[in-house]
Amino acid sequence: MTPILLSSLDLIGTFAFAISGATLGVRKRLDLFGVLTLSFAAATAGGITRDIIIGAHPPAAFADWRYLATAMLAGVVTFFGHDRVERMRNPVQLFDAVGLALFAVSGTAKALEYGIGPTGAILLGMLSGIGGGIARDVLVAEIPAVLHRELYAVAALLGAALVAAGSALGFPFAPTAIAGAGACFLLRFMAIRRGWNLPIARLRDVDD
Amino acid sequence: MTPILLSSLDLIGTFAFAISGATLGVRKRLDLFGVLTLSFAAATAGGITRDIIIGAHPPAAFADWRYLATAMLAGVVTFFGHDRVERMRNPVQLFDAVGLALFAVSGTAKALEYGIGPTGAILLGMLSGIGGGIARDVLVAEIPAVLHRELYAVAALLGAALVAAGSALGFPFAPTAIAGAGACFLLRFMAIRRGWNLPIARLRDVDD
Amino acid sequence: MTPILLSSLDLIGTFAFAISGATLGVRKRLDLFGVLTLSFAAATAGGITRDIIIGAHPPAAFADWRYLATAMLAGVVTFFGHDRVERMRNPVQLFDAVGLALFAVSGTAKALEYGIGPTGAILLGMLSGIGGGIARDVLVAEIPAVLHRELYAVAALLGAALVAAGSALGFPFAPTAIAGAGACFLLRFMAIRRGWNLPIARLRDVDD
Repeated sequence: MTPILLSSLDLIGTFAFAISGATLGVRKRLDLFGVLTLSFAAATAGGITRDIIIGAHPPAAFADWRYLATAMLAGVVTFFGHDRVERMRNPVQLFDAVGLALFAVSGTAKALEYGIGPTGAILLGMLSGIGGGIARDVLVAEIPAVLHRELYAVAALLGAALVAAGSALGFPFAPTAIAGAGACFLLRFMAIRRGWNLPIARLRDVDD
Repeated sequence: MTPILLSSLDLIGTFAFAISGATLGVRKRLDLFGVLTLSFAAATAGGITRDIIIGAHPPAAFADWRYLATAMLAGVVTFFGHDRVERMRNPVQLFDAVGLALFAVSGTAKALEYGIGPTGAILLGMLSGIGGGIARDVLVAEIPAVLHRELYAVAALLGAALVAAGSALGFPFAPTAIAGAGACFLLRFMAIRRGWNLPIARLRDVDD
Repeated sequence: MTPILLSSLDLIGTFAFAISGATLGVRKRLDLFGVLTLSFAAATAGGITRDIIIGAHPPAAFADWRYLATAMLAGVVTFFGHDRVERMRNPVQLFDAVGLALFAVSGTAKALEYGIGPTGAILLGMLSGIGGGIARDVLVAEIPAVLHRELYAVAALLGAALVAAGSALGFPFAPTAIAGAGACFLLRFMAIRRGWNLPIARLRDVDD
């Protein structure tokens, strides 16, 4: 994977996540700034958190203006074309799965590069993929969807684990990254199609 | 602006933000510790987040006891004099606008000083101004007011942008900072007076 | 206190906090991943936040796999044995108080070690103890229990203050740490037994 391709995919993921943030902001009746904030948070919070944890100062979202520009573009498009975006829900979910796959893989790779061990790197790769959605939902006072949605985090975990395993076994990065991103995307895609979910605990007494 | 004046204004801003946190805590029926926590969070979360992102360890709020002392003082005053503080809502909003203006300006300047580019520095200046209010509202499980309130973040953005522009053009800091803080304060002040708001998206179908 | 003992106690605290997170996750009907996320967040968010603030990269929770393993074990046990865990509420609260005491003490010590002054170190010690519970509650969109629960944070504050005072007076670490942890545990234990609470502000008009 050339850096240009990687960077393009990264911005596509940013765009897709930003749309998910903006869509939620519009539904919650936030003003234009609120919608743009959710765009930016959904698109960048995962990577920012990862960079803060591994000590990469400043995080890419603040060092490279293209992330901000991409998130703002997605936010403005969603703000003014909200009806159309809602009708396109399927393509948006596809983009979102692409973003998840790419962020999980690149997040794991970046953590390994900074000397984090495999367990930590897998966690941070997953966090890179799901952190934006968590920030987005916490900002509108909702329980993060990732905590109860079809195999979202598990898909990120799978992609991250493949990258960490490949690195530990000394495989070259490109095929490992493609395998990790592909597996993450496929699992997420199938979970959406088939409605696959993780179990929830059986409660004898519902006390809530 | 001498360092002493700057530092005094910084503590005034801290005090004003802490009052906004403590007032919310009292309304939510938190105990004394909860009220003091909201004071501290509202007054310092913006600056702490900025310092973490730019890699300034430790953040000023943990290195200089005057921030804690100021926030605690504001919290205790509000806790025991809650009725009086509520009646003074106008002065509190004025102080808050002063705090916003100053934090936006000093936050941008600090980010530039740490080598962040202009786009990132503007974002971080705005975040310094609005981060405390976001943390305050998230801690009581509410959607942050800044996401749907009269030109609050936009005012911070304006102040931050003027400082970044002045720095890029090689202007001396003092007049730039005064212009940035003044513009931020004025815009926020007028927005409160006139009830200026940003637009929210038109929805064809209200599906919430 | 030998490092092995300290480390064992640290993992006991991690286990207890993870159980509190997992229990909340099960009650909120999260799926298995959501429950494990709350386990990990409750057990490690306080220490992660402390490490980010003092600039300890990477935080222990990402560098040492035993924290993740301990939190996952507690999460799985709670997920599959939820009824039994709920019935053991008393032992869980005891473990939780042990965790609070230990995290407050070790958090203060680590902050001092990184050159933070006493005020900041006390704050960070307290934050190490209560941060996990705050993250856990924010993730399920609730007001953190620590903001309105029996002397929880105050107990952590007491433990942290004793460690900082002992360090400032040049006392050796072991007895100081034992005194700090003991005082924190005792105060929290008595507060649970006796229902001790901090005051909340009297409101003339309930305007909410």
